[in-house]
Amino acid sequence: MPESPIAVGKALQRIDSVDKVTGSAKYAADIKQENMLHAKLLRSPHAHAKVKRIDTSAAEKLAGVRAFATIFDVPKVIEYWFSLRTEEKKKQMFLRDNLVRFIGDPVVAVAADDQATADKALSLIKVEYEPLKALHDPYTAMAEKNIKIHSRGNVAFKANKVYGDIHEGFKNADIIIDNTYRTSKQKHAALEPFGTCIAHYQSNGKLTVHSSTQLPHWSRHYLAGALELPLNKVRVIKPHTGGSFGGRCGLIHGLEVMCSWLSRQTGRPVRMSFTRDEDFMATESRHPMNIKMKTGATRDGILIANEVEIVSDVGGYGTHYIGVIADCLSTGVGLYKIPNYSFTGTAVFTNKSPGGALRGYGNPQMNFAQESQIDIIAEKLRMDPLDLRLKNYRKLGEIDPVLDQEILSNGLQECLEKGAASSGWKQKRRQLPIKGAKKRGIGLSIMLHGTGAGKALPDPAAATVMINADGSVNLVTAAADEGQGNRTVLAQIASETLGIDFDKISVSETDTETTPLDCGTHGSRQAYGGGLAVRAAATEAREKLLAYASNKLGVNEDQLRIKDGAIFETTNSENIILISDLMRQIQIEDMSVCEQVIGSATGVAPAMPGYYGAIFAEVEVDIETGEVKVLKLTSAFDVGRAINPDLVEGQITGGAVMGMGFALTEDLLVQDGHILNSSFTDYRLLRTCDAPEIVPIIVESNEPTGPYGAKGIGEGCMVNVASALSNAIWHATGVRLADLPMTPESILLELAKDEMT
Amino acid sequence: MPESPIAVGKALQRIDSVDKVTGSAKYAADIKQENMLHAKLLRSPHAHAKVKRIDTSAAEKLAGVRAFATIFDVPKVIEYWFSLRTEEKKKQMFLRDNLVRFIGDPVVAVAADDQATADKALSLIKVEYEPLKALHDPYTAMAEKNIKIHSRGNVAFKANKVYGDIHEGFKNADIIIDNTYRTSKQKHAALEPFGTCIAHYQSNGKLTVHSSTQLPHWSRHYLAGALELPLNKVRVIKPHTGGSFGGRCGLIHGLEVMCSWLSRQTGRPVRMSFTRDEDFMATESRHPMNIKMKTGATRDGILIANEVEIVSDVGGYGTHYIGVIADCLSTGVGLYKIPNYSFTGTAVFTNKSPGGALRGYGNPQMNFAQESQIDIIAEKLRMDPLDLRLKNYRKLGEIDPVLDQEILSNGLQECLEKGAASSGWKQKRRQLPIKGAKKRGIGLSIMLHGTGAGKALPDPAAATVMINADGSVNLVTAAADEGQGNRTVLAQIASETLGIDFDKISVSETDTETTPLDCGTHGSRQAYGGGLAVRAAATEAREKLLAYASNKLGVNEDQLRIKDGAIFETTNSENIILISDLMRQIQIEDMSVCEQVIGSATGVAPAMPGYYGAIFAEVEVDIETGEVKVLKLTSAFDVGRAINPDLVEGQITGGAVMGMGFALTEDLLVQDGHILNSSFTDYRLLRTCDAPEIVPIIVESNEPTGPYGAKGIGEGCMVNVASALSNAIWHATGVRLADLPMTPESILLELAKDEMT
Repeated sequence: MPESPIAVGKALQRIDSVDKVTGSAKYAADIKQENMLHAKLLRSPHAHAKVKRIDTSAAEKLAGVRAFATIFDVPKVIEYWFSLRTEEKKKQMFLRDNLVRFIGDPVVAVAADDQATADKALSLIKVEYEPLKALHDPYTAMAEKNIKIHSRGNVAFKANKVYGDIHEGFKNADIIIDNTYRTSKQKHAALEPFGTCIAHYQSNGKLTVHSSTQLPHWSRHYLAGALELPLNKVRVIKPHTGGSFGGRCGLIHGLEVMCSWLSRQTGRPVRMSFTRDEDFMATESRHPMNIKMKTGATRDGILIANEVEIVSDVGGYGTHYIGVIADCLSTGVGLYKIPNYSFTGTAVFTNKSPGGALRGYGNPQMNFAQESQIDIIAEKLRMDPLDLRLKNYRKLGEIDPVLDQEILSNGLQECLEKGAASSGWKQKRRQLPIKGAKKRGIGLSIMLHGTGAGKALPDPAAATVMINADGSVNLVTAAADEGQGNRTVLAQIASETLGIDFDKISVSETDTETTPLDCGTHGSRQAYGGGLAVRAAATEAREKLLAYASNKLGVNEDQLRIKDGAIFETTNSENIILISDLMRQIQIEDMSVCEQVIGSATGVAPAMPGYYGAIFAEVEVDIETGEVKVLKLTSAFDVGRAINPDLVEGQITGGAVMGMGFALTEDLLVQDGHILNSSFTDYRLLRTCDAPEIVPIIVESNEPTGPYGAKGIGEGCMVNVASALSNAIWHATGVRLADLPMTPESILLELAKDEMT
Repeated sequence: MPESPIAVGKALQRIDSVDKVTGSAKYAADIKQENMLHAKLLRSPHAHAKVKRIDTSAAEKLAGVRAFATIFDVPKVIEYWFSLRTEEKKKQMFLRDNLVRFIGDPVVAVAADDQATADKALSLIKVEYEPLKALHDPYTAMAEKNIKIHSRGNVAFKANKVYGDIHEGFKNADIIIDNTYRTSKQKHAALEPFGTCIAHYQSNGKLTVHSSTQLPHWSRHYLAGALELPLNKVRVIKPHTGGSFGGRCGLIHGLEVMCSWLSRQTGRPVRMSFTRDEDFMATESRHPMNIKMKTGATRDGILIANEVEIVSDVGGYGTHYIGVIADCLSTGVGLYKIPNYSFTGTAVFTNKSPGGALRGYGNPQMNFAQESQIDIIAEKLRMDPLDLRLKNYRKLGEIDPVLDQEILSNGLQECLEKGAASSGWKQKRRQLPIKGAKKRGIGLSIMLHGTGAGKALPDPAAATVMINADGSVNLVTAAADEGQGNRTVLAQIASETLGIDFDKISVSETDTETTPLDCGTHGSRQAYGGGLAVRAAATEAREKLLAYASNKLGVNEDQLRIKDGAIFETTNSENIILISDLMRQIQIEDMSVCEQVIGSATGVAPAMPGYYGAIFAEVEVDIETGEVKVLKLTSAFDVGRAINPDLVEGQITGGAVMGMGFALTEDLLVQDGHILNSSFTDYRLLRTCDAPEIVPIIVESNEPTGPYGAKGIGEGCMVNVASALSNAIWHATGVRLADLPMTPESILLELAKDEMT
């Protein structure tokens, strides 16, 4: 770190804040194009069926109807990322067949001059289905041999991984805990619904798509593949986005490809915008999991064996099912040093809406199970669960066996200590009053999450820094900002590295046509992976700047310093030149130079550092109603370095509430394939009034591979809210819940069981 | 040059051709923005006046009127380029006072909800003027001591330059020719009128302007200066453009700055679009010149002295007046080796519409005078004018004394020889039939024009080349295409350098936010200066590509070749890898690399090479009506290397017709400050039906500093049309005309004089 940072570590105002509060920020739905068509999808009413015939003849006769696109013609994108790696695998990415796999699966899209005509046209389309047996449950799907949701069978993916000797481990265990946990089908429920884009396939053969994707360059790849276009003929532009939380990690099922197809047929821009009902019904959600976990420990509190069997419900499609399972493995094994670990993960297709990426990937599910197990062990051994965790977590300098990398920063102990101190853990754990029906408790849990994908996925980052003649800067990057503020963070890193004031840095729009290849925003990676690229690009520009200054000032580069927009000799601050003067001289005044000074970087981050967190949850449970009131969440997170503490706190606070939703209320209820609660009236998202006191604590462990020591925060801060709350509910009531969400009904049911025993 | 070029030298289809023929190309006037205001200018009815008071009170009451901007508040941009070089000089660039300096000079702008309201509002504004004496003529203006059009006086600029000893030169001359030539106020008359933009100053403090400027990055500088914004807060986007011909070399007087000002006041996008009448009346036109030229030669046809005195009519404002005078000097001195040369150029303010850049800058004016003089000398010495020119032009290896640079390529002799052969010069010069009233003649002239600005102006060029995972390419450049096709040429250079097919190259939009600093399109520079930047960027990308291929194929880079999208070992073509495979491996498959492969270049061209041309004109003059019918123009031009021969021929053909207009018909007629012919009905632009047979001949001299040998063509091909026609008219009729345009009236008048003498 520089001695007196000018941008890093400062709670600077977001670069998009004025646009957002004044309403001038344009979201996908705000974009209108001349001569634009409006598209709408006819969706399957069957959870599983063969489409025999699509009759659009009546709809075709309707004035203003311009084009149709059916699943017979338009490929679905069913694999991501890994499959880009070879031409052979790319063929598996796209599926064109006559099956619908969940209620809401698109069958045909219509494009018309206006929305009303499109709606009417849908009502005139006749689709003949041959219903097939629907497989609503992963266990049924695994057992079923005759009905295959996908031609390769109903098991999408299976992972087995063993470390050490699991039998030996259990043999040496003094205590063995064996439970099964079930997690819910959480929805992203972003403020801006998923599913709005405008696609324009122009007469020159170029396709331009405005869509709020987290991964613009990969979305460009998927679109190019689906439409069989070269990459230079596809342009993806990401407007402002009202939250993604993983749900825009790629294309939206039935959206961009359908629109592009319709635009290619008509030559006109085609807009499609899902309703909130469509978002709930037919876009991705969190993979529900059954997690069977058997954990063994010695009587002195050493974890020695963990056997995990996960069944993950992929739904009818699920482009992220491998990564989600892999994340359960890496976060489970990574967090604790358990020498004997056996992991089985099975991802299974069912006739539900697609599973996908949701903040935390597989970690919130896995963490809920594992952190419950650890708590139960502490309880059985009568240990402070804090001490048990301190004893067993993987420490600085140890090797993470899944990633095969050394832990170079780890602030977990500090998170636990500061969180315990701030929350009053020791006193409250002992002295929580139990008066009448309202029982209070405090619980804690910890978590590890990876920053970026390391070398587990293609994870390119890139940036270009251009210094202008007045010393201001344009930063060109495809780093997608979903609302979390990462473009602000990247501008801070550019500012710090260059020594140029933050307000002189502009960040480009997110547009694949002019930005270098950045994989996008996922895996809590932008401050780290994106930040490394920006720092490298800015360093290159800074070095060029210093070389010019060295020439002007007659001093070697290593004797120069940059501060307050000027470059000067370290030992003689009167030998100085303003960056604006230097730049003007280089670019304009010295006509034999005329160089802009550009730095660019492209490549991959050197590691996938883990970031850590401890959450201390205080609850009050009404044992008569089962209602849980969260009193306070103390969230201490090791982010390596907080480039912008306000934004880190924003993540921690938002993550706390999202984690509470996952823990207590959120679940898409599916009955015979029908989602019962596809609206905000029925899908119980937590609101501001539900938020408890939240105390964010930032711990800085200084990750040596990170830009200014930074690693991630975006996902982790929601990961272990559910486990902390469950552990607190146990502390308050003695009830141990294994299923999410932890509803009042489930608490009452468990309390009733306790009474019966 | 590569042995078998894949793109360079090929008449490939323009990358914008489909957009243009299908009408999908968006021009400035096609751009609409939500909530857009419409602005209109109230212009001065006085050629010279002080604005005492502007009363907008009545207009303010009109519903839908949103904002006003007056010359009291909004600065005019009155200096360009050079003035960017220091903070001190930058202050001279902007003028805020209460004077109007020509009829049509903007006084106040109004922005309203619609065009009709804006028009009505204008009629309600009362302006009180104090008329000042108008100076309609540069000689009057120079003589006038009390009335100053600008505070520093009426002489805008004066240049004196002497080579050798002019008195000694004339002393040794056997023949001295002394004449005065007058050239006209030609208008660009572009298909798309000048004067349409949309400016949006957003609440976040960022100004975005869509405007068809030739020099987007400099326009950004001017706007930033006028509005006192840092460069990173100003974004200039250039849409498709329907011809510029120099007239968009910067901002349009009263357009972008006014719109930006109105947008800052209202926070809404503001659109302004001049009528054709406004374009004619109030945007830039060619500087009319009086050129007194005294030329001496020995009896054996050696040019030994030339004395030139130019008075250039700047109009009320004229941001290019220095460069235009400088161009007269450099093209005059550069073309012929005349040892004794005295040059005086005076640019004078008058109360006319602004002078500016127009294809050829000062060269068409200067060339008309000098090439007339040379022809007269040949006539007097009874020499073939072709031989006289061959004897005296500056040859390969000689030093151009104005630019102080060696001539590294010069195809003028080949131009003369091929042009003579093709046109049948020798026979026709002797045997042209003279039947009745219709007299036929053939004349020739030559020209030199510089490519780019060399080191005479800040002339940066830059480009970024990004190779995609499928081997396709995005080229990011600010090279403004005004319709001539230079983006196609740059894509060809990228294709050739990379060894990747032309159709796999996309060229970015012209947008200062994401493109590196390129000065823009002027001075016939894009194929050369822009091309050099693209070649350098592509070379860097190619070298990275080859380094990766070397690693994969186990062969040194120098043993590798690129062809047909593949890289292979020169001596073993089975050791091969497709670029698409290599790129996919680097970017996606090898997850420890994930590098895009980017090449970038920024800097300035090493020289300002001259390009040459000879035009052979055949005419038929009706001596009863004075009408000149151009029968044929044979235009042989040395372009160094024709990157795209079709586009070069397009330039030569278009330049020939524009040159004919300058020679024969075009002139803005100004009477007491009023332009009399501000419409296409009255301003006589030549049409397709007026075009003669045009024979373009491309000569390739292979400029060693150029990309694949290229230098310029854009301007030069119109420069010497007027002199060639004048020389042909003399040959047909014996009449020597000194004034442009050479109207039937002027020919009849000269014929009458001849008869009288």
